[in-house]
Amino acid sequence: MTTSVSEKMLKLGTHRSTIREIFEYGRKRKMEVGQENVFDFSLGNPNVPSPREVNEEAIRLLRGAEADTVHAYSSAPGFDDVRARLADSISRRFGTSCSMEQIFMTCGAAASLTVTLKAISVPGDEVMVCAPYFPEYKIFVEGAGDRFVMIEARTEDFQLPLDRIKAAVSEKTKAMILNSPNNPCGVVYTKENIMALAEILERKEKEYGHPIYLIADEPYREIAYAGVEVPFLPLYYRNTIVCYSYSKSLSLPGERIGYILVPDTMDDPEKVMGAVAGAARVLGYVCAPTLFQKVVAACADQTSDIAIYEANKNLLYNALLQYGYSCVEPGGAFYLFPRSLEEDAYAFCEHAKKYDLLLVPGDDFGCPGHVRISYCVQTETIERALPLFRRLAQDYGVCGR
Amino acid sequence: MTTSVSEKMLKLGTHRSTIREIFEYGRKRKMEVGQENVFDFSLGNPNVPSPREVNEEAIRLLRGAEADTVHAYSSAPGFDDVRARLADSISRRFGTSCSMEQIFMTCGAAASLTVTLKAISVPGDEVMVCAPYFPEYKIFVEGAGDRFVMIEARTEDFQLPLDRIKAAVSEKTKAMILNSPNNPCGVVYTKENIMALAEILERKEKEYGHPIYLIADEPYREIAYAGVEVPFLPLYYRNTIVCYSYSKSLSLPGERIGYILVPDTMDDPEKVMGAVAGAARVLGYVCAPTLFQKVVAACADQTSDIAIYEANKNLLYNALLQYGYSCVEPGGAFYLFPRSLEEDAYAFCEHAKKYDLLLVPGDDFGCPGHVRISYCVQTETIERALPLFRRLAQDYGVCGR
Repeated sequence: MTTSVSEKMLKLGTHRSTIREIFEYGRKRKMEVGQENVFDFSLGNPNVPSPREVNEEAIRLLRGAEADTVHAYSSAPGFDDVRARLADSISRRFGTSCSMEQIFMTCGAAASLTVTLKAISVPGDEVMVCAPYFPEYKIFVEGAGDRFVMIEARTEDFQLPLDRIKAAVSEKTKAMILNSPNNPCGVVYTKENIMALAEILERKEKEYGHPIYLIADEPYREIAYAGVEVPFLPLYYRNTIVCYSYSKSLSLPGERIGYILVPDTMDDPEKVMGAVAGAARVLGYVCAPTLFQKVVAACADQTSDIAIYEANKNLLYNALLQYGYSCVEPGGAFYLFPRSLEEDAYAFCEHAKKYDLLLVPGDDFGCPGHVRISYCVQTETIERALPLFRRLAQDYGVCGR
Repeated sequence: MTTSVSEKMLKLGTHRSTIREIFEYGRKRKMEVGQENVFDFSLGNPNVPSPREVNEEAIRLLRGAEADTVHAYSSAPGFDDVRARLADSISRRFGTSCSMEQIFMTCGAAASLTVTLKAISVPGDEVMVCAPYFPEYKIFVEGAGDRFVMIEARTEDFQLPLDRIKAAVSEKTKAMILNSPNNPCGVVYTKENIMALAEILERKEKEYGHPIYLIADEPYREIAYAGVEVPFLPLYYRNTIVCYSYSKSLSLPGERIGYILVPDTMDDPEKVMGAVAGAARVLGYVCAPTLFQKVVAACADQTSDIAIYEANKNLLYNALLQYGYSCVEPGGAFYLFPRSLEEDAYAFCEHAKKYDLLLVPGDDFGCPGHVRISYCVQTETIERALPLFRRLAQDYGVCGR
């Protein structure tokens, strides 16, 4: 006899994530003590508005000659003119030769990942992810029927732990997801680190006789700080597939718009793109939202005001160090990932609630003993939270400056 | 050893559908003989623009107090105010008591279906579909790991063939997808037909001791013609899940916006809704596009100018009957599904190309011996095509009037 619903889906839909739990706690707490007295550093929701041109372009489209046609279906990979413009922007920025045939528009980063995984893997394949990692990766990888292989973090600098990666690759390894700038630690993998990784994967590809794809999940690509370069992975590793989203760069997380880039320099790019189209179809992604396809094409070379995130980072990072916290300096994104001041990060986060500081335990990102602090909040919120972070440190006797 | 990509996805992404083939043929042919001389009746793309209020509301949102917040994430089921407004509209229109908790916003009808199937079934379950049917159903059902069980059409009136349905239900039957007004035949299932179906399914539910869900795929609900009532299925069958889309009612197919309605009168509605949330998460649907969530909420009780489709239907249907074609009169949608004038519908469609009439063979919809004519085109296009339909009939000697 069959059950009434899928128990797996029921569990995924009703078992709240820790981040969500904390967010709900914050909502209630705000009602008790007032909005301004709760310091919610739990969510990765961009707080900087979209550049002015985003809404202007949308209004222009809704008013102009395209007003009646912009809501029609596009072809499955997206409008040709949109893909051509994005390809052109990529070519200019990274010195590559990208054409529209290499771009498949998607409903955001999550869709880019689920479609890519479904396209390149068959159930039983393995997909590697380095800790600390965005927790939904596990859901997406297992949702595609693949085995999720976590590589333990190299906590001293959060660069890729090459020896552990080398040891973890097996004949069944189909892909590795790489997220740089990284959520939750903000680190950008260096060019040297990437090159060493590429060497390992290429050797393993030859050994096993099949491609091992590097899936570059890049929603934070544009949020990189002064002096930090985010290597464009297809330049360093042939079998790279880029999963991009405009959620953070243009502050459009609700509009669900991004793309998959399948560079023509990889093995069998037509085959990979064909499988991407098939996977999008099977999962019910008919096309990416059309108005915002056009909008991001017009705003391809712009970003929201990233300087605000960098100012927040400097303010909070410097203060935390001064108070005695230990933290790897982020190169981008909008997260800090300091060591927890006691071994059990859950207990530490509970203690922080005493000061109405809402942090997320690193365990959720595969990295116990750390906490994630999302600083995509008003700078003034950080300023008012600093004395509380100091008192928290004092409670653990680490410092008192 | 593992393969380089999923062969299944590659096939689905590269094996063109017949409809697509015809569309591509049309594109080439138009370049040869001129746009106006090719009569492309192959695509179901709404040709009537969105009501004026759609773009006006979007512009209002992009200009007003919500300009900076409308692009932020909504919660996974959608904005509360949006869900409340849609629930209110449903309650008013169908005399039910729908609340926001019953609504889960989605990226359109395809997403509604893939999410629902993933939520309620486990691999090996069976899902029934009555011919003629929208071909993607097979892709979605098999994509969820389920077995696709097709019920042969009742070609005399295209109502549900109850005896065949009764015989096809098994212990493994988890759901039946019902599409009314129907693509490709335009028929609306009558209240009596639905009630008889409900009786069969309820008896089988008792016999097998588990729910058999009726999945009401309703993108064409609002496109129903004078005097035709489209029964609201939750009123007739308890375990109904409604998959709705604004693609046709508001002519917004590119914006990917719709919802899943899980009525609280069904068995375990919280469990079903929980599984829907889990399935959406696993497939990478973070939330439905936020700007258009707000837009459809404001325009919930409106539709595009449906009268144009009805005028097209009357013009084409009456002419075809006069020319000797045999066709069940549609009650809605924007398709006619006449009998092919020779047994092999592919051969008939090939012959029709002689007159640059592009039709789709019914075989693709599980119903050989018929052809689909999409009349969501300019009325003037139909007027100019009529003499060609007559000459086509004359070639087969059916009539000459």
